[in-house]
Amino acid sequence: MATTTSISPVDLMRGALKKQKLDGFLVPRQDEFQGEYVAAYAERLKWLTGFAGSWGCALILGKKAAIFVDGRYTSQVRDQVDVKVFMPQHLIDEPPTNWIKANLKKGHKLGFDPTLTTITDARRYQAACEAVGAKFVAVSRNPIDDIWADQPQRPDTKLNLQAERFSGKSARQKLADLSKALKTQSADAVFLAEPSSVSWLFNIRGNDVPFTPVALAYALVPTKGKATIFMDEARVPKEVKSALKPYAEFAGPGSMAKALKAFASKKKTVLLDAGSAPQQVALLLKGAKLIEGNDPCTMPKAQKNSVEQAGARAAQLRDGAALSRFLHWVSVEGPKGGLDEYSAALKLSEFRKATGKLEDLSFETISASGPNAAIPHYHLDVDHARPIKTGEIYLVDSGGQYRDGTTDVTRTVMIGEATAEMKDRFTRVLKGMIAISMMRFPQGTTGAHIDALARASLWSAGLDFDHGTGHGVGSYLSVHEGPARISKASHVVLQPGMLLSNEPGYYKPGHFGIRTENLLFVREAEAIEGGERKMMGFETITLAPIDRNLIEVDLLTRVELKWLDAYHARVAAEVGQLLDGDALSWLKQACASLSRS
Amino acid sequence: MATTTSISPVDLMRGALKKQKLDGFLVPRQDEFQGEYVAAYAERLKWLTGFAGSWGCALILGKKAAIFVDGRYTSQVRDQVDVKVFMPQHLIDEPPTNWIKANLKKGHKLGFDPTLTTITDARRYQAACEAVGAKFVAVSRNPIDDIWADQPQRPDTKLNLQAERFSGKSARQKLADLSKALKTQSADAVFLAEPSSVSWLFNIRGNDVPFTPVALAYALVPTKGKATIFMDEARVPKEVKSALKPYAEFAGPGSMAKALKAFASKKKTVLLDAGSAPQQVALLLKGAKLIEGNDPCTMPKAQKNSVEQAGARAAQLRDGAALSRFLHWVSVEGPKGGLDEYSAALKLSEFRKATGKLEDLSFETISASGPNAAIPHYHLDVDHARPIKTGEIYLVDSGGQYRDGTTDVTRTVMIGEATAEMKDRFTRVLKGMIAISMMRFPQGTTGAHIDALARASLWSAGLDFDHGTGHGVGSYLSVHEGPARISKASHVVLQPGMLLSNEPGYYKPGHFGIRTENLLFVREAEAIEGGERKMMGFETITLAPIDRNLIEVDLLTRVELKWLDAYHARVAAEVGQLLDGDALSWLKQACASLSRS
Repeated sequence: MATTTSISPVDLMRGALKKQKLDGFLVPRQDEFQGEYVAAYAERLKWLTGFAGSWGCALILGKKAAIFVDGRYTSQVRDQVDVKVFMPQHLIDEPPTNWIKANLKKGHKLGFDPTLTTITDARRYQAACEAVGAKFVAVSRNPIDDIWADQPQRPDTKLNLQAERFSGKSARQKLADLSKALKTQSADAVFLAEPSSVSWLFNIRGNDVPFTPVALAYALVPTKGKATIFMDEARVPKEVKSALKPYAEFAGPGSMAKALKAFASKKKTVLLDAGSAPQQVALLLKGAKLIEGNDPCTMPKAQKNSVEQAGARAAQLRDGAALSRFLHWVSVEGPKGGLDEYSAALKLSEFRKATGKLEDLSFETISASGPNAAIPHYHLDVDHARPIKTGEIYLVDSGGQYRDGTTDVTRTVMIGEATAEMKDRFTRVLKGMIAISMMRFPQGTTGAHIDALARASLWSAGLDFDHGTGHGVGSYLSVHEGPARISKASHVVLQPGMLLSNEPGYYKPGHFGIRTENLLFVREAEAIEGGERKMMGFETITLAPIDRNLIEVDLLTRVELKWLDAYHARVAAEVGQLLDGDALSWLKQACASLSRS
Repeated sequence: MATTTSISPVDLMRGALKKQKLDGFLVPRQDEFQGEYVAAYAERLKWLTGFAGSWGCALILGKKAAIFVDGRYTSQVRDQVDVKVFMPQHLIDEPPTNWIKANLKKGHKLGFDPTLTTITDARRYQAACEAVGAKFVAVSRNPIDDIWADQPQRPDTKLNLQAERFSGKSARQKLADLSKALKTQSADAVFLAEPSSVSWLFNIRGNDVPFTPVALAYALVPTKGKATIFMDEARVPKEVKSALKPYAEFAGPGSMAKALKAFASKKKTVLLDAGSAPQQVALLLKGAKLIEGNDPCTMPKAQKNSVEQAGARAAQLRDGAALSRFLHWVSVEGPKGGLDEYSAALKLSEFRKATGKLEDLSFETISASGPNAAIPHYHLDVDHARPIKTGEIYLVDSGGQYRDGTTDVTRTVMIGEATAEMKDRFTRVLKGMIAISMMRFPQGTTGAHIDALARASLWSAGLDFDHGTGHGVGSYLSVHEGPARISKASHVVLQPGMLLSNEPGYYKPGHFGIRTENLLFVREAEAIEGGERKMMGFETITLAPIDRNLIEVDLLTRVELKWLDAYHARVAAEVGQLLDGDALSWLKQACASLSRS
């Protein structure tokens, strides 16, 4: 095997395909869990093509190959991939299914790994193959895992328990509720393919991927009898095993085939979500009656219970104090010069670590100065961190993973004097954020119905921003959690207990960027005098000052100003209890009423 | 036949079904054109059951029968129908398909008239029948038309031409555009089942049903050669025939079967909208390749051209002057006592007729005093018209059909002194109406995205209204026109030239009701300084004063007040030119700036 050094992954792959009598193969970026982050062993697309983006796939045939990436990666793909070998294609405009139809012929066999491709995706690929008389063939072992000589080991981190004082509900109770839900759908069991659902249901967490403390596992949960969590038993500490013993057992991924086949042979009815469940599961459950539907854990996981809500409030307060310390530090050090985006991000992490409760960041900190702030998903290059300069805007979007809650907050601050344009834009963004924060709305309202309220002030000035207004946030889980969002395309009804971000922005490419982000709980609004209908509302739980130097007070209505002053008074009172000395003095100043100024 | 007097329609019907070896029959309220209004001959449901509502259907079996109506008619159905014979069912909650499954058995034949049931509906009924082993059988002649002794004649009103100075585009040009659109869908022809589409395409109008000047006709329009308009030739005057001669011929409905079969035998590809085309058409086109899609006239009909826009502005000004005269008259006569809802509605019609250009009203005037105004679709009972009293609100929602445009406007006025509650509610409704009127929004925005802006002020006070914010309006066509609306469920993108109503409201049952309605054109917004993106906006074209006595000025923001003053100044300037004497003086007063008061 030492002679393989001169053979490229592509050539190795083509050799392997020939042996298996396949004409081509589909290589997605995803691992078995379809998440944003994957462990090193699963970076098959990167190994084969060089492409290191977080989303994409390749199709390789005997003499031709293509790589499919979305708009974010059109330039990156050309830097990282040999485009003479893999022709770059736009994932949306030139989808792989079109390429299949154009390049496969009758009788061709296109292989795929059914553990990495969802049922929904497999159907689309299969239809494309069939359209030209080709076949879409599931292989029993991914050829890359045989030819990738130095493929990293699979993670062997250990599972841990999420205590009930954080989760607020026992796995036993959640399982009882789930069982009831399954019965209404006449299902004997559910196959859960979403690691966040498995983690939530059994109150377990893991450390396999950065930023997201999910346990990477599937589960088969019957209405009667014990559930099976598919995860290497060696990775399950005794205390986890014994805590779950009454209602779940663990089986290594290798046992899954046997377990599912056995289950299917009893002609049982199994609910699964075709958008997250891999095709492999559909194959193994042949014989069972499959009901396709939404993952039944998605809604209860999104609607945080009172313990999770209390935890989130505590986490936000702690996190808000760390952020406030940081903002004070920036206000002192920024104007002196010498700071850069990277050193600032490190300092912020230090403040978060100093809380003594930080488990991880909830995503890579976006620390962006000047024109970099105009890139909504700015990725900091450590070697080219930009200085934080006077006369410029500095934007920091960051969050922490705490046992009691996941945080996500953005503040935009001015170093020095803001221009009139900056203040105008900042205030319009703020008006949008306040509109969402204050609003009341009837039951049945969706994110698509209210997204415009965050934009109306920008729209009226001929401006807008090109991302959604908000996303769901997990409870010591993913910082991006479904099913609800505040965006034009989100038709999920907002329900009490959902935790959402509220983060309108404005970006002037090459100049500056603005985003102000708080997290909100959806909740039933308090009744008000004269009110006739039960209304829903939001509770803002993020606590950190909003830079007064960027606010054009005359642009705010009386009602908006009142909201802002009340918010700042609350920040001063609550966060103030956790600060002292200069930081506390600064906070009081930063939270002073604007009505009186 | 003189002996039938003692036999009820139900018994007659059951006898007829027996003869035809049918176990039951579906009787919808709709005629062949699926519209809101039907001619007297088509009131088959009313003849059979007594039910006179505008939507519903009956299912009659040998020994059992049911009538299905929606929430608007649950009490009316019990007044009009013998519920021992026809069991009332809720059309949505207890749909006919459920009743079919519960009451039909294997081998049963349920008859239906395929000219009255759309393809989409027929599919649903057929599936329900098949689920229990029954058959859904199309009959070649509606049995009711044989047994209904005094069935009225079909209308014999004449078609007329809509001149190009009103339509803005020749039928020739519209046909050329349609032909292009059909080619992009690889269709050889389109079957148009929507009378408003046929009317728009050929610039023809009719007088068959009240309020809506459509020609009740279908059309088969090929990409090459002449179109066929299916309408009794005797009803087509010479000038219409000769105007359309170059590109269309007329064929009586009796010839349609032959024409469609002949077309189908050539294996042509035909586009049709399954939601409007009757099942009969699908049966007759057997052999042709059917493409189901949206009616291709819907979008160009909704996007008014510059001539239609100019016409609409002229119609609105004329109509606004008539309405202003009426509002002046109410302001003088109302407080004296002696007016009632009916006399007021008549007077308003007189003012409209006095313009010399009124062809018809665009719907039955809603003239509602006091608590009646709390019923959004209040239907005036002439024998029980309520007096218009001092201390009460009077709401009038009305419109006219003019050759150059269709109008729809609502004003709510106070007779005497308004209470603080009335003023608060009125002002919140007004804030919503102003928010929509003023807004700018990017391309791609739908009615669902902006509906909340009309409600936010009510929502914040725990209030709401239970109808959409706005509907499309035709150009001398139906006052309710698709496809766009401003409502939570409307996902059609707002496009320049669409004419929409903007009519938030508030209703306090048993007390009072409020609605303020203007019509708006969607248009590209003028560029503004500093604006970066192309924005869309609305142009308000309805011109009539909004009652200042109901406005709580302190609730308005500076920006809202500025909009209102500018609107009133415009009304005073434009409508003022058409008024004189007392009415003009009153108008000036009614339109005075509120900023200065």
